[in-house]
Amino acid sequence: MAASASQTGAQAQIPRGVADYFWAEAYARRVLESALLDLFRAWGYQDVIPPMFEYADTFLHRSSAKLQTELYRFLDRDGSTLTLRADMTIPVARLVGVRLHDRPMPQRFCYAGSVFRHTETQAGRQREFTQAGFELVGAASPAADAEVIALTIHAMRAAGLRDFKLVLGQLQYFYGLLQDLQLPPEQSAHLQRAIDRNSDAELADFLRDTPLRTQQRHTIEQLPLLSGPNAEAIIAHADRLCLNYAMHKALANLRDIYQVLKAYGVTDQVYLDLTEINNLGYYTGISFEILVPGVGFPLGGGGRYDNLVGTFGTPQPAVGVALGIDRILNAQRTTGSGDIAVSAAPHLLIACENSADALALVSEWRSEGLRVVVSLDEPPVNEPSLTDHRGEVLWQTAQQAAVPLAAIWTGQGFDVYGLNADQPTTPRFVPYAEAATIAAAARSAAPQPRTLNSFKGSAGDRLSSDTSLPANAKNDAKSNAKSEEQYGLRA
Amino acid sequence: MAASASQTGAQAQIPRGVADYFWAEAYARRVLESALLDLFRAWGYQDVIPPMFEYADTFLHRSSAKLQTELYRFLDRDGSTLTLRADMTIPVARLVGVRLHDRPMPQRFCYAGSVFRHTETQAGRQREFTQAGFELVGAASPAADAEVIALTIHAMRAAGLRDFKLVLGQLQYFYGLLQDLQLPPEQSAHLQRAIDRNSDAELADFLRDTPLRTQQRHTIEQLPLLSGPNAEAIIAHADRLCLNYAMHKALANLRDIYQVLKAYGVTDQVYLDLTEINNLGYYTGISFEILVPGVGFPLGGGGRYDNLVGTFGTPQPAVGVALGIDRILNAQRTTGSGDIAVSAAPHLLIACENSADALALVSEWRSEGLRVVVSLDEPPVNEPSLTDHRGEVLWQTAQQAAVPLAAIWTGQGFDVYGLNADQPTTPRFVPYAEAATIAAAARSAAPQPRTLNSFKGSAGDRLSSDTSLPANAKNDAKSNAKSEEQYGLRA
Repeated sequence: MAASASQTGAQAQIPRGVADYFWAEAYARRVLESALLDLFRAWGYQDVIPPMFEYADTFLHRSSAKLQTELYRFLDRDGSTLTLRADMTIPVARLVGVRLHDRPMPQRFCYAGSVFRHTETQAGRQREFTQAGFELVGAASPAADAEVIALTIHAMRAAGLRDFKLVLGQLQYFYGLLQDLQLPPEQSAHLQRAIDRNSDAELADFLRDTPLRTQQRHTIEQLPLLSGPNAEAIIAHADRLCLNYAMHKALANLRDIYQVLKAYGVTDQVYLDLTEINNLGYYTGISFEILVPGVGFPLGGGGRYDNLVGTFGTPQPAVGVALGIDRILNAQRTTGSGDIAVSAAPHLLIACENSADALALVSEWRSEGLRVVVSLDEPPVNEPSLTDHRGEVLWQTAQQAAVPLAAIWTGQGFDVYGLNADQPTTPRFVPYAEAATIAAAARSAAPQPRTLNSFKGSAGDRLSSDTSLPANAKNDAKSNAKSEEQYGLRA
Repeated sequence: MAASASQTGAQAQIPRGVADYFWAEAYARRVLESALLDLFRAWGYQDVIPPMFEYADTFLHRSSAKLQTELYRFLDRDGSTLTLRADMTIPVARLVGVRLHDRPMPQRFCYAGSVFRHTETQAGRQREFTQAGFELVGAASPAADAEVIALTIHAMRAAGLRDFKLVLGQLQYFYGLLQDLQLPPEQSAHLQRAIDRNSDAELADFLRDTPLRTQQRHTIEQLPLLSGPNAEAIIAHADRLCLNYAMHKALANLRDIYQVLKAYGVTDQVYLDLTEINNLGYYTGISFEILVPGVGFPLGGGGRYDNLVGTFGTPQPAVGVALGIDRILNAQRTTGSGDIAVSAAPHLLIACENSADALALVSEWRSEGLRVVVSLDEPPVNEPSLTDHRGEVLWQTAQQAAVPLAAIWTGQGFDVYGLNADQPTTPRFVPYAEAATIAAAARSAAPQPRTLNSFKGSAGDRLSSDTSLPANAKNDAKSNAKSEEQYGLRA
């Protein structure tokens, strides 16, 4: 044990890419996770808790090349290779494919927990990070996609965020275009790169170097315009650019989804983008991410993945989303979302001298939701001068710990510090029979823990009158955040 | 991907010793974790979330030989050896020792999360399991030990358990005895084994083989009697057996703690046991475990560990407890604790046909805490016979998923199935203006999620009039569960 005592440098004590969360920071994480899970459950999603590690094969065969290099792998004692889970979607797909395939569909799952990726650490990057999300398995209808999008928007609101955009694409539109173009792989990649990077210069290069029919050329030239808050105009425009049935079908799907989103009343925060193709390798239909102006990475991402569950058993259509808890908390701080002030500090510090009467009151207050700390100092010797001094010390202790009230049991009641806003250091005596006064003061002095319902009715309060995402904000986000995978959200 | 499709045997899909939790089972875990964390916070404990893995040295140098063999170890890419955390106490001690040593004491921490031990799996054993617990660092007073014990008892009650015992020992009493005996190591181990196993035969062997003074012999002979629910009588008896100051001091400490426990009103569930010595290697003062008659393993354990924080920096006294979430849930099932029936099933299945009016109602109901699933079936063609059929299908779907009510939007209101208890398959029409009827019926038809307050005032309702733990139940638990460590609770 002595050998370790020398390792007291703060940096040396925990591995790179992980962190200790404690006090208000840890509490804010828990409160956010609970609020999101409660919301998901209200929409009929049921909890799933997959193992923290799986067989490496489960992830290896279903991940992009990049994610495969980021898996934490280790040997089990029976010789099999294990990996810390890198997302929750693959374990849920495994669960449905292997164990729940013969249960009624659709099935709805929600989760919150750690996932692990061995990325090169940067500011704000972690190798262990928390995702909250949900998966809707066994439903292929536009109403399913719309439900997932609407719930994602409600989740962002429940997190206290208002000025965010859900940027929605439909990969099949671009797939349809590629189908029509019949390009050699190199030129196909060139086009994808130009669109993905939103680069006019690269697109001009592509158009100059590639022989195309007039109609094809026109569609590609117009592609960069197929993005913005006015979804119906964009869909109408995109419709005129269709070159084949696949493109028409993708748009019809998007139009159906958008109709349901209107019924949900969430279209103000949807930003359509048919150039959103950076998840080409993973999703099979819609894909989306959540962006906040001024925050250089997506807070979450999702989409339809109809080919994953089938790799474990019977194929099932599926659509889902993963939100980054760390990123949402960061965005709350960046945007100064006032709603989400969460204090973990106790409401009251009390010196009871182990009186059963006083402890009974404390127990009652705690069961009413107050956070009460009982002082553990030894009872003072029975000497008035020391007792006086003790009150001051108790009040100082309370203030150091951001506790708004302190009380000392006197046998007939409490000397309470902090009750008089003008003279907090002068105690006010509150008789035992009137002790409810103390609880009421504690309750109003400290912020209450945030609940889901505290956001009820406030949707839109903070919504800027300009509901469109500034074009440069979007481009910033796009160029700073090339793909969700890169930022640890969905594989 | 195709290669993996052959691995569809359920057993082959996840590593040994881990599990998928889903639906009600996962929800029950979350609800219990949340209720416990809320309770811990009400007592002023603040959340801590340590990393899922640490440097192996952090655990290796501070664990028993047995735990060292159970660590999951793997290499980081920088060559350092990491380990999945095997408990939460060592990370908290590290955090205080390295980073928070200069902040005001005492510090209170609470947590819930996975820990990992590579044990040989048996029925009910897992290599990943969930602990919820709390640590009180920087306080050495009897009031600190009493607070931890009282909160542990409140936690068991919050979990819906009534017929449990907190078996409390004070290791320093036995240490004091060993000090006085000055035995060679082999005989000392013999005595410990006899006491730990509660074996009359082994104790007789020891007494026969060991030369002792009369007073020493008398004390050892009486030791097995120092256990039972009548703590004050046992302390008085133990007092007459003291051979030195160390034993007296241990008893005085226990007496002080017991006085505070009386003020907390929790002594009915405390079972004193001065032969409780199986944590000899880890704890430095009191130690305790939670036992339930008929359940062959402790649900949790705790104690005072004044030497751990100092291995990371400045020494600090500390006391804490870890509860096994899996074990508490198992004990709830075994003892049929009725309070804790938790349903994760939705309250209502609704077919809205994407009506904005209907979806607005659904949104309101969800924000009031109802779990509402929107049916994703495509709207039927407008043909009465098909519409009728659809209602039956919807109601069948609801019943398969344990949802008590199903409703179909008609344009002016809802056809509701399940409202008439006598004729659930005959829908009743509820006009839009009276839709609150549906929410009220859904609320009363399905069990509400358990909250901390639902246990308020019910303490003792299920308390058996025989508050003593049957001697054989205790011995069973002791022999089946030789040590907390062996069962994954505290190192």
